Formats: sequence, structure tokens, C-alpha cells
Amino acid sequence: MMNKRWRLTMLSVLSFIAFIGIAGITNLFPALSVPSGIPPIEDAATTSCDSRSTMPRHFQIIGKADTVHWGYFSKSQPPILSVHSQDYVTLDLITHHAGDDYERMIQGDSGIESIYRWTETEQGISNRGPGVHILTGPVYICDAEPGDLLEVRILDLQPKPSGNPNYSGKTYGSNAAAWWGFHYKNLAQEPNPREVITIYEIDNTGERNWAKAIYSYRWTPQTTPDGKQHATIDYPGIIVDHSTVEETPNVLEGVKVPLRLHIGAMGVAPKEADIVNSIPPGYFGGNIDNRHTGVGTSMYYPVAVPGALFSAGDAHAAQGDSELDGTAIETSLVGTFQFVLHKQADLVGTMLEGVNYPLLETPDAWIVHGFTYANYLEALGPDAQTKIFEVSSLDPALQDCSTKLRDFLMNGMNLTEDEAYSLITVGGDFAITQVVDGNWGVHGIIPKAMFEDRPVKPRPISS
Amino acid sequence: MMNKRWRLTMLSVLSFIAFIGIAGITNLFPALSVPSGIPPIEDAATTSCDSRSTMPRHFQIIGKADTVHWGYFSKSQPPILSVHSQDYVTLDLITHHAGDDYERMIQGDSGIESIYRWTETEQGISNRGPGVHILTGPVYICDAEPGDLLEVRILDLQPKPSGNPNYSGKTYGSNAAAWWGFHYKNLAQEPNPREVITIYEIDNTGERNWAKAIYSYRWTPQTTPDGKQHATIDYPGIIVDHSTVEETPNVLEGVKVPLRLHIGAMGVAPKEADIVNSIPPGYFGGNIDNRHTGVGTSMYYPVAVPGALFSAGDAHAAQGDSELDGTAIETSLVGTFQFVLHKQADLVGTMLEGVNYPLLETPDAWIVHGFTYANYLEALGPDAQTKIFEVSSLDPALQDCSTKLRDFLMNGMNLTEDEAYSLITVGGDFAITQVVDGNWGVHGIIPKAMFEDRPVKPRPISS
Repeated sequence: MMNKRWRLTMLSVLSFIAFIGIAGITNLFPALSVPSGIPPIEDAATTSCDSRSTMPRHFQIIGKADTVHWGYFSKSQPPILSVHSQDYVTLDLITHHAGDDYERMIQGDSGIESIYRWTETEQGISNRGPGVHILTGPVYICDAEPGDLLEVRILDLQPKPSGNPNYSGKTYGSNAAAWWGFHYKNLAQEPNPREVITIYEIDNTGERNWAKAIYSYRWTPQTTPDGKQHATIDYPGIIVDHSTVEETPNVLEGVKVPLRLHIGAMGVAPKEADIVNSIPPGYFGGNIDNRHTGVGTSMYYPVAVPGALFSAGDAHAAQGDSELDGTAIETSLVGTFQFVLHKQADLVGTMLEGVNYPLLETPDAWIVHGFTYANYLEALGPDAQTKIFEVSSLDPALQDCSTKLRDFLMNGMNLTEDEAYSLITVGGDFAITQVVDGNWGVHGIIPKAMFEDRPVKPRPISS
Repeated sequence: MMNKRWRLTMLSVLSFIAFIGIAGITNLFPALSVPSGIPPIEDAATTSCDSRSTMPRHFQIIGKADTVHWGYFSKSQPPILSVHSQDYVTLDLITHHAGDDYERMIQGDSGIESIYRWTETEQGISNRGPGVHILTGPVYICDAEPGDLLEVRILDLQPKPSGNPNYSGKTYGSNAAAWWGFHYKNLAQEPNPREVITIYEIDNTGERNWAKAIYSYRWTPQTTPDGKQHATIDYPGIIVDHSTVEETPNVLEGVKVPLRLHIGAMGVAPKEADIVNSIPPGYFGGNIDNRHTGVGTSMYYPVAVPGALFSAGDAHAAQGDSELDGTAIETSLVGTFQFVLHKQADLVGTMLEGVNYPLLETPDAWIVHGFTYANYLEALGPDAQTKIFEVSSLDPALQDCSTKLRDFLMNGMNLTEDEAYSLITVGGDFAITQVVDGNWGVHGIIPKAMFEDRPVKPRPISS
């Protein structure tokens, strides 16, 4: 009897784990609990590269005007924190679309208020652009040097509750169907063109695993405190004056959007330019906008500058492959990460040797990222940061992605080129990551289960 | 105690069902049993459009020289069978890559032998081309007229056992990394270029749910019985002389390729031309090569000519999104279908009104197919069938696909354009169907579960 009960219990547990693990795309029970096994948070002021604790430590960074930078990755940005390999960091990831509904997404949260603060006489962050994302960081990874690989494990993502007590238990997000969207020149109805903001509500008590739209409005010209008028969404952090827009209530009534909490933009500082627009992704990661970049995954980044200089932002409650209209459900999340540094010398002979692009590992798969240009900063010369927005296409992105996947399999799984191409074709999937970020993306997915019975290269030792 | 055990048992069962249901893509236990509830097979000679049985009937077509056509869809092809809406048909789907290993894929199966038969003096089927696929049919659907929608339900797909007793319990397939592959100009190793055939083995007893590669060879010039030499894979049905090739054994050793039995090419006859190359897909379906087209799904086709003239072939044991190197694991399957005719008048006011492209319904999702050209036959003029191979790109395919998905949601789910674009962006996924068939494909997936609580348009009544 006991034995039978035990077997049943195990079957329940294993099936349930398998269910959660494989559900992925339409996960009905996303992990919303605080992860266990992570050390308690210590004072960030106590860490430096000079001394390393015997045990990994855990620090937290609250999102506020002096912990974020807005619109760029930069090798010159002063770090807000230095950590060692194996350390944990909990970061606020503050959405750059919070101004679409100040009351729900800014008001009452002093950190977010400090970021968005803008009056005729002062501005919390006046240095915005050339991109749009509010990025928390950078975090300096001690001992990281060009040629190393930085593994960033996403251990937890939680919706950041609205700071406004009127919206207790709720988190809000905005989807902007904007001028940079793929759909923008393909509107059937008037007015044409138009930009549309749809505000979504997320329950942050863990009771509901889907988002619902609550209202939408069409963008009207907005005037910022500097007196400039913005006929379109052409500047980051505009606070929309809701007396100028007409809210359409009850949009998408009865429609449930499955939550897919993930991070749109995170990465390390590129070496090619001092200020790099946060919008186009590249070898350094950045705004990849891959909806698989969620809890339980690790992204590997090639370190380009000393200390790596990791930053993250652009949190998403949900997004489909392509990010068609220009944005996800842009929201604020709290993320917990572990950084693991793989030194260049330790990569030799391992599965990760030669990885010079952002590589995502999920519990079930390896996901390789291709772009129109693998490194647009290098390929397009001095004007790269403007040119990239004129030349994007999915065809070269698939070329880049399939080449990377071939090379990954040839090295990591010890395949010949003939074997690699055959396997990619019959067992690998290519999806459209995004077509709205300048350097368009395609990701290639190769299931780990295919290699269970094959001797493959080892993983690297971590420092 | 009993109560607790009962709860555990239920949890096991429910979790397991959920696991199987959601696993989908990496389904570990594909349905290989014969479907129940389908009437017994009757003599196909007894059916005609003149009389309709009160109950649906079931016919079977064996794949042989006089039940298939090779390389084209055609409104002039004489039907091999006439059926009424609701009838069932079991069709052999014979792979056009069987000549890559005569011994394993042709020998001992008299039907397949009759198709491939080719000596200096006679040829089982001499009318091959301009495309490559062996298509079984056409099946004439009684009462089908232009403007109607033909629903084709895939009820069962079974690997067709090798006819050679030396290979009992096995089915074989071929992956050709060929000159039309996306990878072909991107080979790192010599000889460059090269074409590679990889032969895969499938267990057809139901014991193994994955395929394994057994050997590969590089294409060498082959001489057909008409004396022509084929330096590349440039003619359908070449029987490879294995004394001219060098077999590499043990390729992809230890690698398991999850089975994804599906149909690469099926569709109705287009109206635009008398003979239409079977390779580029279009509004009529054809060689869509969507790996989701498996058991439990329905494809809806706009009927273009009287009787619809449905044909199917190009069976696949497995393929990833993109079909990168040119082909799937091309194999022979036995498929059981039910045809359901939706008359044009019955479509008004339903979810399917306005669907003028192949639409796939799976248990969990609606999948819309976009192409570089929605109807390349019409768009590219008289030379369409050659031009299409020079102009393909994924960018317009995504444009076509996202427009179709928007329109499907606006009509079927009663959404405004603003709602449709927002929902597609945050909850719909776009993947690369294929980049090797001339008219490149992108498919858009929208989960049904999102609409559970929303009043949507009804499905049409079927005739």
C-alpha cells in the first residue's frame, strides 16, 4: 500500500514537473514565488572587487534615477555595483513605457517617480537616448575581460506592484502600436497612420496567469515640459496627458493573454562605440526581445570590455515572436540574477568554445540568436547606428542564425558539417524574434533531448 | 486514506494528460494507433457523385503508378476518386526521395516499384515535373465549387513499412541537403558545393518515437536510363546507384530526432494555370511544408475549381521550422483524411468568412500561412512559375501572414484593427515555415485558449 502511494506521489510530482517544464509557451502556472536557496540580501555598499567572499553574496538594486541609464549601453557608464562570479543580484527593471499611464505605472513609487521626474526647471534624467530603454546598471563583473563569456542566470522575475494604493495587487503594462512597428504601413482603417496605446493589467498576487487589456487610446500630440511637441512617440519617457486622449474602455474584452514574463533588453557593453543606441541588438546582447528569456534560462554573452558592464531593462509581461506592432506588454519587473564568469582559457575544449554571440540556454533547448548583422557596429562603419534602421531584413538574419547554429553543433556536439545541417533541418526550429528593433532577429532552437545518448563536449568550469 | 489516494491518482492522470496535451512540439508519445470511429473501407469503384450515402463512407487509395501524378497540381488531372462531404479516404503518400535508397524505400513494394519503374524501354510514369512531388489523387469532392472552403481533417498518419522483408518493422526516410537549400552557398568545408543524402530509420512498430540517422553519402553524378547525366539532384525519381557513392556509416550517432509525422504537400488544384509546379506553395495550399500539419489538425483550402481536386504527398517523418537544407526526413506515410465541404453561402457570418488562403486548425491554435506572394501565379504574370524562384524573401511573407492573421481576428474574433494588432503582438507567434520552396513561408500561430471567455463568430455548417 505505502509503496503504491509512493509511486503515485512520484508520478504526480514527476508529471507535474514535466508539465510545467514542457508547457513553456502556454505555461499556466508561471513561477511567481520567491526562489529558495539564494542567500539573503546584503548591503551593496560592502562589495568591491578587492576582496571576494568565500560564499556567493546577494545584492539588490532599486530602480531610481541614480541606478539607471536611459537609452544606451556604454563602456563609459560608471558601474553602480561590482560583483564576483557566482554572486546574485536582484534588479528592478523599470519600463520605459510607464508614462503611457502615469497613475498606474509611476505614481506612488518613489524610485520610478525619480526616473520620470520632469518639470520646467528640472529633470530626473536629462540624458536620454539615442535609444529608449531604461537600463538598470551597469553591474561590473570582477575579473571579466574581453574574450570571456558571462553567463547570466535568470532565477526569478516578479511583476513590480503598482506604487499607487488604488491599484493594490496589480501591475500594469503598455503595448504601444507605434510608428516603428512592422504593421504601421499596413493599416486598413482610418485614421491612417495612427499610434495606439493599449494598457494591460497583470495580477501580481499569483492568482491569475494571464494579462487582460483594460483600455486603449490613440496617440495625440503631447507637449513635454521643454515646450516641444511630440506628434508621434519620438522621445523616451513622455508623460501622456490623459485629458488630451480618448480612452476606449473594455478593449479585448474576454481575451486572456498568457503571461510570458521575460526580459527584452539585457547585455554587456559593446566595445565599438562609447554610446550605443539601446534599440538594435547585437553580439553584446542588448534588446534581443526574445520572449524565451525568462525564469530558468541562462544567457551567455561574450565579454567585450573589462568588467563586462551588464545592464538590464525592457521588462515584458508577454510578447509573441516578432513583436509585430513595436512593443511587448511593457511593464516593470523585479529580476533576480546570478552571474557566472567563464574565463577565456576555461572555454577551450568545451561546448561553449567559439560562442561570440548571445546564446540562450533553457531547461529544454539551446537557442541561438541571429541578426541582420551579427555585429552591425563593426559591419556598417561609423554611421552604423543610423544605417542599421534602413537595411534590416529577416533573410540575412536567418543566414546568420543558421551559420551560428551549425557552428555550435559542430563544436559542442562533435558533429560534422553534413551532420549539423541535416540535424538543424529535421530537428531545429527557426522563429522570428523581432522585426522592430533595427537589427532584425531570428532565433534557432535545438532541443537538448536529441543529444541525451551522445557524447558531447563538456561545459566550462566557472571561475 | 482512500480519499488521499484518489486525489493523488487524479492528479497523476490530469498532470499526465496536460503533459501529453501541451508537450505538442516534442510529443514523446505520438499517436500511432489506428483511429477508431471511422467506417470500414469500401470498394472505391462503388462511389460517384450521382448518389450520396446516408452515412459517410471510407475509401482507400494505394499508391501506384496510376493513382499518383508527379510534380504538379492540375485542374486537368483526371480524378482517381469522387467523394462526398464527410467521407473518409485513406491515401498512400509516397515519397519522391525513395530513389535515394532503392533497397530500403522501394524494393518489395509493388506500388512504389510501379511508380519508380524506369528502364531503357519503359517508364512507370514518364510525365514528371516541373516540380518533384509524387501526389496521390486528385480526389474529386462532389458539389465543391469555387468560393467554397474545403476542410481536410488529418485523422491518422502511419509510417508505411518498408516492402523489403530484410527491413521488417522499419520505415526509412531521406534528408537531401540539396542545391536548393538555404545552406547551400554557406558551406564551410570542402568539397564546396556538395549535396548530401542522409538516410534515417523510423521504427513503425510504435516502440520508438524518434528517428535515427543510419548513414549518409555525398551525391555523385547519376545516369538515368535515358542516358542523361545528373550532376546534381535535378530530376525527380533518380534511382541512385550506390556503387557510385561512398556511404558514411554511423552518422549522427546517438542523436534522437523526435518524430513529427506530417504532410509537406497537399492542396487543391489552382485555377490560374493548367499545370502548376508542385514546389511553390500558394493560396491553394500545395507544398506548404508546415511541420504542424499532422494528426488531429484540419487544413481549410479555398476551392478554386469544380470538385476542388485534392491531392497529397511529400510525407515527412520530421522537419524543423525553415526546412533549411532543402528537405525534411522525406518518407512514405499512410494518411487517413476526412473531407468536409463548407459551401460559400454557409460561410457568411462565420469565423471562416473571407478565408482565401490555407488555414490550419490544431487542437490548440489557429495557424495562418503567409508567403512571399499570397498568390504568386496571379501576381507574377505568365512567367510566374519561373520568376517565383528568383524573388523570394521572408520579409514580404511576414507582411502577408500578419495581414491575414489581423483579418482573421477582426472577422472571426470580432476584434477592431487596434485590438487585433495588439493581440497579435503580445500573444501571437510568427515562425519561418520554409525557405526552400520558391514562395517562402511564414506562419502565424494564435492560441485558441485566449478566446475561451469571448463571444466569437460561429463555425460554419458543413454540407
